[in-house]
Amino acid sequence: MSSDFGRILHISVFGQSHGRAIGVVIDGLPAGEEIDLEELQRFLDRRRPGTGPLSTARKETDIPEFLSGLEDGKTCGAPLCAVIQNAGQRSKDYGELADKPRPGHADFTAWAKWGGHADMRGGGHFSGRLTAPLCVAGGIAKQLLARRGVFVGAHLAAVAGIPDRPFPLYPTAELFSEIAAKPFPVLDEEAGERMRSAILAAKNDLDSVGGVIECAAAGLPPGLGDPMFEGVENRLAAALFGIPAVKGVEFGEGFRAAELRGSENNDPFAMKDGEVRAETNHAGGILGGITTGMPLVLRAAVKPTPSIGRAQRTVSLSCMENTDLTIHGRHDPCVAHRAVPVVEAVTAAVLLDMLLEGNHGTF
Amino acid sequence: MSSDFGRILHISVFGQSHGRAIGVVIDGLPAGEEIDLEELQRFLDRRRPGTGPLSTARKETDIPEFLSGLEDGKTCGAPLCAVIQNAGQRSKDYGELADKPRPGHADFTAWAKWGGHADMRGGGHFSGRLTAPLCVAGGIAKQLLARRGVFVGAHLAAVAGIPDRPFPLYPTAELFSEIAAKPFPVLDEEAGERMRSAILAAKNDLDSVGGVIECAAAGLPPGLGDPMFEGVENRLAAALFGIPAVKGVEFGEGFRAAELRGSENNDPFAMKDGEVRAETNHAGGILGGITTGMPLVLRAAVKPTPSIGRAQRTVSLSCMENTDLTIHGRHDPCVAHRAVPVVEAVTAAVLLDMLLEGNHGTF
Amino acid sequence: MSSDFGRILHISVFGQSHGRAIGVVIDGLPAGEEIDLEELQRFLDRRRPGTGPLSTARKETDIPEFLSGLEDGKTCGAPLCAVIQNAGQRSKDYGELADKPRPGHADFTAWAKWGGHADMRGGGHFSGRLTAPLCVAGGIAKQLLARRGVFVGAHLAAVAGIPDRPFPLYPTAELFSEIAAKPFPVLDEEAGERMRSAILAAKNDLDSVGGVIECAAAGLPPGLGDPMFEGVENRLAAALFGIPAVKGVEFGEGFRAAELRGSENNDPFAMKDGEVRAETNHAGGILGGITTGMPLVLRAAVKPTPSIGRAQRTVSLSCMENTDLTIHGRHDPCVAHRAVPVVEAVTAAVLLDMLLEGNHGTF
Amino acid sequence: MSSDFGRILHISVFGQSHGRAIGVVIDGLPAGEEIDLEELQRFLDRRRPGTGPLSTARKETDIPEFLSGLEDGKTCGAPLCAVIQNAGQRSKDYGELADKPRPGHADFTAWAKWGGHADMRGGGHFSGRLTAPLCVAGGIAKQLLARRGVFVGAHLAAVAGIPDRPFPLYPTAELFSEIAAKPFPVLDEEAGERMRSAILAAKNDLDSVGGVIECAAAGLPPGLGDPMFEGVENRLAAALFGIPAVKGVEFGEGFRAAELRGSENNDPFAMKDGEVRAETNHAGGILGGITTGMPLVLRAAVKPTPSIGRAQRTVSLSCMENTDLTIHGRHDPCVAHRAVPVVEAVTAAVLLDMLLEGNHGTF
Repeated sequence: MSSDFGRILHISVFGQSHGRAIGVVIDGLPAGEEIDLEELQRFLDRRRPGTGPLSTARKETDIPEFLSGLEDGKTCGAPLCAVIQNAGQRSKDYGELADKPRPGHADFTAWAKWGGHADMRGGGHFSGRLTAPLCVAGGIAKQLLARRGVFVGAHLAAVAGIPDRPFPLYPTAELFSEIAAKPFPVLDEEAGERMRSAILAAKNDLDSVGGVIECAAAGLPPGLGDPMFEGVENRLAAALFGIPAVKGVEFGEGFRAAELRGSENNDPFAMKDGEVRAETNHAGGILGGITTGMPLVLRAAVKPTPSIGRAQRTVSLSCMENTDLTIHGRHDPCVAHRAVPVVEAVTAAVLLDMLLEGNHGTF
Repeated sequence: MSSDFGRILHISVFGQSHGRAIGVVIDGLPAGEEIDLEELQRFLDRRRPGTGPLSTARKETDIPEFLSGLEDGKTCGAPLCAVIQNAGQRSKDYGELADKPRPGHADFTAWAKWGGHADMRGGGHFSGRLTAPLCVAGGIAKQLLARRGVFVGAHLAAVAGIPDRPFPLYPTAELFSEIAAKPFPVLDEEAGERMRSAILAAKNDLDSVGGVIECAAAGLPPGLGDPMFEGVENRLAAALFGIPAVKGVEFGEGFRAAELRGSENNDPFAMKDGEVRAETNHAGGILGGITTGMPLVLRAAVKPTPSIGRAQRTVSLSCMENTDLTIHGRHDPCVAHRAVPVVEAVTAAVLLDMLLEGNHGTF
Repeated sequence: MSSDFGRILHISVFGQSHGRAIGVVIDGLPAGEEIDLEELQRFLDRRRPGTGPLSTARKETDIPEFLSGLEDGKTCGAPLCAVIQNAGQRSKDYGELADKPRPGHADFTAWAKWGGHADMRGGGHFSGRLTAPLCVAGGIAKQLLARRGVFVGAHLAAVAGIPDRPFPLYPTAELFSEIAAKPFPVLDEEAGERMRSAILAAKNDLDSVGGVIECAAAGLPPGLGDPMFEGVENRLAAALFGIPAVKGVEFGEGFRAAELRGSENNDPFAMKDGEVRAETNHAGGILGGITTGMPLVLRAAVKPTPSIGRAQRTVSLSCMENTDLTIHGRHDPCVAHRAVPVVEAVTAAVLLDMLLEGNHGTF
Repeated sequence: MSSDFGRILHISVFGQSHGRAIGVVIDGLPAGEEIDLEELQRFLDRRRPGTGPLSTARKETDIPEFLSGLEDGKTCGAPLCAVIQNAGQRSKDYGELADKPRPGHADFTAWAKWGGHADMRGGGHFSGRLTAPLCVAGGIAKQLLARRGVFVGAHLAAVAGIPDRPFPLYPTAELFSEIAAKPFPVLDEEAGERMRSAILAAKNDLDSVGGVIECAAAGLPPGLGDPMFEGVENRLAAALFGIPAVKGVEFGEGFRAAELRGSENNDPFAMKDGEVRAETNHAGGILGGITTGMPLVLRAAVKPTPSIGRAQRTVSLSCMENTDLTIHGRHDPCVAHRAVPVVEAVTAAVLLDMLLEGNHGTF
């Protein structure tokens, strides 16, 4: 078991980049939930490679077919299976790679694990393409959450070290929608312009850049999550590291908290509209693994795309000797902007799972 | 279920800071393994508050009693239960806190979850004290791993923004032992001196500081871990966020990878002593969630101790009105240095669990 | 999460009887395993309704399409997804049933759970049709097990109280093949004849009958399984009750053991060919939840098909009043004989999962 | 992981029969629940060996000490750990057994699994003694269930083939209390008398007998449980097979259903007091794995105690040759009557776990 997560809401992803199809089984969705397929498609489209110079030239339509679980536009209690056909693969681009593991890719570790039997064409099951079915699951979760007053949104917090403005203390559904509607998901357009320049500069250098995605959830009740190993942070981190290229996850101030003093990092409590609120949100909405009722805030670090056009040193697995590799084919000079909806999707799926489980602190 | 983790090796932690005892059940240990109790005690002692000015004045002896699973010094296949009696609590120090949630602590979220029924004296089940039984489990795991050539060690990578030197490309068991023997677990003594000064300065200001712990594992085979949601990163992160005060987890370059270019972050492969190795280790020993055979490297961010001596703004839960709180009693101005063996413990436990599960990539 | 099971080998079933397709995701298969699709199809055909009078007239071809995980006839490490298109549904037969729950079916409990949103056409997700994808998973598991010397087979131990001969002390792969090749899977042809007569008699009475399936696994090593709640019995029972209509599961003598004396039920140990063997196998190959190395023997009780042609008393859920119901459409007067390969499939899947996990008793 | 079960309510059992202590960790109990320790002790006493001739002469007091999770008589949200000290072991009785596996016991399989490192004195971790901590967990679960109108009770349905009267269609809390108060838990005193005679006759013959326990739960809502592999039957069976000596589990008519016709086994629905009820309960309160709202009824088969006074054939593991074994020491000629509260305990624990999880069929 590996490509699945969740307890009540169980999400199982399948497929290889250049196989016949990719897809997802979502088990545990409540019944009678209407799924707005147009809204879902708009969400999926945010992840798709664009037509501009920032992305791969691969054509993906990514229209899910629903084999089960969805009848007359509503969930029916049975596991939902959605399939996306693969098309437009150019596997010949990857021929040489079967023998020469690409630095920074899972080629070598897949070989070590599966003894050369893995289908690694286009990255195989490790490909970013697998995030499309993840977004089907997350897009559905987002709709169910929104119906219950919980809104999940994200922006590109940084590319190549160039920062966007952070979320305000109380991000809203409207702000999330606004960002989602943008072709490049940043709060600060000027920062976005600099990020795009950095991506293009890397592309021109046959190189790539990484970025950071900041995701927030507004509307969560306090008291969600369990102590120690089943807290909100534990469960979100476990799932978020499932997104290809994510190498770090932090909540609230995260690593910056390690540089602050307690008096700076502690969030004073104060009454607001009859409820206990924090005046600041350095904790990112979580204390002791349990939600405070303040917005949940997390960040995920996305490494630079390992596929770059420059010649790189690697080995030949058949000859067990050093060699060089130049990767041809189409590659994103940056995947961080495309990963923004993916981080939202995974976050939404985990939060819906936790809400379905309920707060059984008192029964 | 919340205070447990693991699949084959299942670790379940119990106790409250000021309850009768704390402890751990470790289910799934292989049988016939000799446990060196003196070595275990030395490991536990690294976590204990010292006698110096850097730590709380609370006296903890932390000697585990083994109720089951260990006969004649060897594991016997049955679940191992170790109990540590609590002593030296001064619960009266915490009386006021039942009504006034401490900023940065789980007091408020426990109240939201358990409706005031939680035993939060001394932090209750959320206390850093619960890391003592975690260290029992992890200390045992470390012994079993070492017997199989896998060594886990950690150092204090930073305190209050003051960095230690990072681990070398190939950290060794000897280096880990050397750090473990130090009263303050850093590689660079001069950096350690500056860190200690920063802790004392915070203490003098009735304040606290945080830090970063860097942990490595040497000797792991390549091919360990499963793709997507059961990778090494997912499982380690899920467990590491169970350590109180951890707010961020990253692997290899982690968040810094987001600022690098692909050509800088990719690790070229090269033959070395007949095996495929990477020339650098920006990936921290993991690609696609699966081990490369290079050292595993991770970092965990520990926030500044939320208990500080300064007056803080909070609310009265009984009156639902704003109030002030001054925390008395004994508190660590920094817990990051004490958390170093805890990060080792959790890392070792997860890695042993994965090794016990085996690499079933090919059967 | 509900329609999935397994730890290393994770099997997730989806689909509704009259939906677009049914299928299965199998995550965790070792890579490089050749799957003999013809052998698999022969296995699936054993479950299909026949053309004779014993079965439903519904036409099912049940040919799985592989969307992922299988490349060039071999597993590739990625999750395998197999889909079977639905066809030949006659949903109009089931119109009345949406309001009138059929006695003995899940109609009422699905309504209670999902508030009328369930797609219960043809039994929906509860239909015996869902055992087809289970058989895809189990058929693949059987091939992998056979390759490692573990053989799983089953026969119809009883129909309507008419017993078949039990398995011999050491059932063989050859015996399993022999039964599998029969149109009616019994050891004793004469008993089979009487069973078929009982089924036809029930059919003529617009009624149905149940049966018992006995399944064995030969070639398991001793020492497999864990004590208490992760024993072979626990894991097999948990999965076997997932087969529709199963109402009882027993191992070895099972319920009959409760009528025996210890001196009759204990299996004496004796050396045989240099190995410890039991002289009898009342334990069904399991002691303390762990395999003895003797054949694993279990039985599953299948209740009589609840869909019968006779008028039955039920209620109208819309009017909340008593009413009558006469079920039209095509139904099996007995499903026990078709469930024989399904019990094999589930048993094989669980056993392969346990073998993949390995015996980590000593590491 | 093996000696634990449950999803929200997680129960982890530890200890060996002749080790220092046995115990249980119960994680996930709702907070603020008062535990009546006297009532709990009365429940535990039902499991203890009596002073009469039907039971072992071993003295067990079985008074649990609570190390955590219970403060001022109430649960506090933290995991509850209860420990029962071992006393009165006479390990010298078991010396010979280390080499000669007792037929019908786990001695051989433990040896096969743990290579001779298992502590099998008195049955070690496989001993019926481990059901004492299970009863602590189950006794607490019973109190929480009763507070919510769900009552669990059991009786000895058969010993040595001698049947008790079955539960009535609607068993009540009063009936359960009545049985629980009896020294021998049967509905029909005359049947009980015959059972006791059968036990004594076996004892006189240096032999043992088995039995069947029937357990019911009244007051469950309809709609609890999930389809296929997470149904009420699956989860109960998985846990019930964790009770030593259980070799079969069935629900409602169970194996007898296989001998009935559909018209006999189907339960007609009818309105009763404004609610949908079944007129009969052959289904044992479960259809499709989901509760109907009728009483849950299950039976567990307990094999005859494998420890008997007669000489038995076995092998010497050190010499790998055939030998004889005569077991001395104290043994129950029957454990079925003592297992009655254990079946209640496990059933209650699983049901509470499912209720805590909630029915998320519609959200």
